[in-house]
Amino acid sequence: MEKRLVYLDNNATTKVDEKVLEKMLPFFSEKYGNPSSMHDFGGKVSKDLAVAREQVADLLGAKNPYEVTFTGCGTESANIAIKGALEINKNKKHIITTKVEHPCVQNTYKWLEKRGYNVTYLDVNARGELMLEELKEAINVDTALVSIMWANNETGVIFPIEKAAKIVKEKNEKTLFFVDAVQAAGKIPMDVSSCPIDLLGISGHKFHAPKGIGALYVKKGILLPPLILGGHQEKGLRPGTENVAGIIGIGEAAKLAKDFLSDELIRVKTLRDEFEKGILKKVFNAKVYSANAPRVSNTTNISFEYIEGELMLLHFADAGICASSGSACTSGSLEPSHVLKAMGIPFTSLHGSIRFSLSRFTTKEDIEYALEVIPPIIEKINGYSPYQKELRELKELRNF
Amino acid sequence: MEKRLVYLDNNATTKVDEKVLEKMLPFFSEKYGNPSSMHDFGGKVSKDLAVAREQVADLLGAKNPYEVTFTGCGTESANIAIKGALEINKNKKHIITTKVEHPCVQNTYKWLEKRGYNVTYLDVNARGELMLEELKEAINVDTALVSIMWANNETGVIFPIEKAAKIVKEKNEKTLFFVDAVQAAGKIPMDVSSCPIDLLGISGHKFHAPKGIGALYVKKGILLPPLILGGHQEKGLRPGTENVAGIIGIGEAAKLAKDFLSDELIRVKTLRDEFEKGILKKVFNAKVYSANAPRVSNTTNISFEYIEGELMLLHFADAGICASSGSACTSGSLEPSHVLKAMGIPFTSLHGSIRFSLSRFTTKEDIEYALEVIPPIIEKINGYSPYQKELRELKELRNF
Repeated sequence: MEKRLVYLDNNATTKVDEKVLEKMLPFFSEKYGNPSSMHDFGGKVSKDLAVAREQVADLLGAKNPYEVTFTGCGTESANIAIKGALEINKNKKHIITTKVEHPCVQNTYKWLEKRGYNVTYLDVNARGELMLEELKEAINVDTALVSIMWANNETGVIFPIEKAAKIVKEKNEKTLFFVDAVQAAGKIPMDVSSCPIDLLGISGHKFHAPKGIGALYVKKGILLPPLILGGHQEKGLRPGTENVAGIIGIGEAAKLAKDFLSDELIRVKTLRDEFEKGILKKVFNAKVYSANAPRVSNTTNISFEYIEGELMLLHFADAGICASSGSACTSGSLEPSHVLKAMGIPFTSLHGSIRFSLSRFTTKEDIEYALEVIPPIIEKINGYSPYQKELRELKELRNF
Repeated sequence: MEKRLVYLDNNATTKVDEKVLEKMLPFFSEKYGNPSSMHDFGGKVSKDLAVAREQVADLLGAKNPYEVTFTGCGTESANIAIKGALEINKNKKHIITTKVEHPCVQNTYKWLEKRGYNVTYLDVNARGELMLEELKEAINVDTALVSIMWANNETGVIFPIEKAAKIVKEKNEKTLFFVDAVQAAGKIPMDVSSCPIDLLGISGHKFHAPKGIGALYVKKGILLPPLILGGHQEKGLRPGTENVAGIIGIGEAAKLAKDFLSDELIRVKTLRDEFEKGILKKVFNAKVYSANAPRVSNTTNISFEYIEGELMLLHFADAGICASSGSACTSGSLEPSHVLKAMGIPFTSLHGSIRFSLSRFTTKEDIEYALEVIPPIIEKINGYSPYQKELRELKELRNF
């Protein structure tokens, strides 16, 4: 088979859809006015921003476009939400989150712990699922914020956010509920208006908008204080001249994400399942721990037992296959994934786990190619493993 | 003369240079990898980011590219700088700034005043110039931060930043010095390494990069705490997946700004001066208060006495001329400019002041057109003024 580039790292970042880019282009060197300007050349750009805001609101299921605030990235959305929620619930000092949040969100909680907050980190089970009973028990009168991701970036496991939202409000109606939906947007249907989610963050570059643009949903009635101070833009919640082209881009990407949702749920899922099945069939030391949990359609996290992730990634890259071992933000660090650790995955699987994440641009040919080149790479790397005896036993055990 | 669009509002925002856009384009749908990824498809993008960082460092005169941090906008740069500096000088509660800072920066100081800070607002003289003696006297042992803009967005007046930096450090070496250089970048030569500027912020869209990207210079040795928490990007000072295309854009724009600096200082200045002279010659009730102050080459702030700014702007826009009355962030508000108020400009001039700001894309034909259409507009609006007697007297006084 001829070498090709097969990009299976869409949970790290995605290709900007050509249709998104096409919509953005006029806003660089033609309609370049400042939306805050008095003159129409700038002022009329604010109408284009309004359309983008509606498109994002529509993807999230927000009833009012003004519930959507544009930010610089998912991390900024999370920071505005978290610090704002704590400012609103100033006298409460308890936070509930999970052990498997994205490192960028988790870092904020570690920082808050040092500043007098008491943080409960909810467990997940061996399949990576959240146990709602634990959430229910953890909420008390002092709980300022509950913060749970909608879909996990490493395993793709979907958390029951609607149920969690109801539990939060039943136990303490003052507690604010923030959802990191960075890995859920465009991958599952969302309807924030139907359940008591207060705050929800997304990032454009995870669903074919460019990098450098995010959004934050703030439910009507919640007056969040800003993190940066300045002008009147974004109702003062995120001042600074608007990233016009980026906003147009995330708007169009939101529209396309909605249009492509059935493709994601059917075609992409089929490809992911074929890939997973193919690998499990061809590679005796492959295992998928979250296989039976509800998952987004594009993600599979495969543990290759007794071998090293980084070495695999390098060999994959040589063969044209882009994948990752955990989040891009923690890659490079030698620590094994905090997500898989929380799932209690044994040491011998932990270091050899690889995340493959597809997108609407992934083709049947891509998957066929990957299934062709990956098994011999694993075979080769198995040869370097210090666990030869265990590998032989596993091969026998699994009837290969 | 045939109607044309003459964009004289470049201090509000600029056209993205086609060469900048050309450099950005591959990073949307081709080289779209995440720079933090292990695989080369993403990882090699970080080399492109390194080039952009060098280009921005070069524009500012920073010796080390790592002194440059990319942010989402000029407002964010200012917020990181100001709040970070106060965190470093935690025990000091005095801040010095000017009465004529950009509203986005000034809002931060007003907010800090409510949080226990004592803020000194330095005056400017009738020409909009800063008096360094006043700065010298204001600095004391409790001064945490001095924050002065390099060039004023409304008048274009350049402040003696190098001298101010030396005064700050002579009076209190612990005091940090932040410069809002949003209106100076690309308009005057800058050399941050030659003087004790600690922190300096710029915004890409003011010099032909796109909106949504800014930068912050942090002098080597200063460990600024971040405003948002998350991953390792930008050495942790501004986490979140990098706005790759935006960074490539501001890098190329910085390179071009350096290349075009002599055009700015000679051709643009000549056009600005011709425009100013032409208006003063043709319109008896026009006056330029900052004419004799050192100014950036592209800006002129013309007061049309006894008439209203907003009405003029609407008529200008009808004729295809984009200009503004103050900063884009405050346009729409009926308050007269805080900058002109600080200069002590009389009431009858204050409400009729218009900022015209040129760029390297402004042509001789643009200026000829503006000089053709503006005087009859003013003549017409003069007719609506309630100050007919004063206008007649002024006309006589100025020998028209």
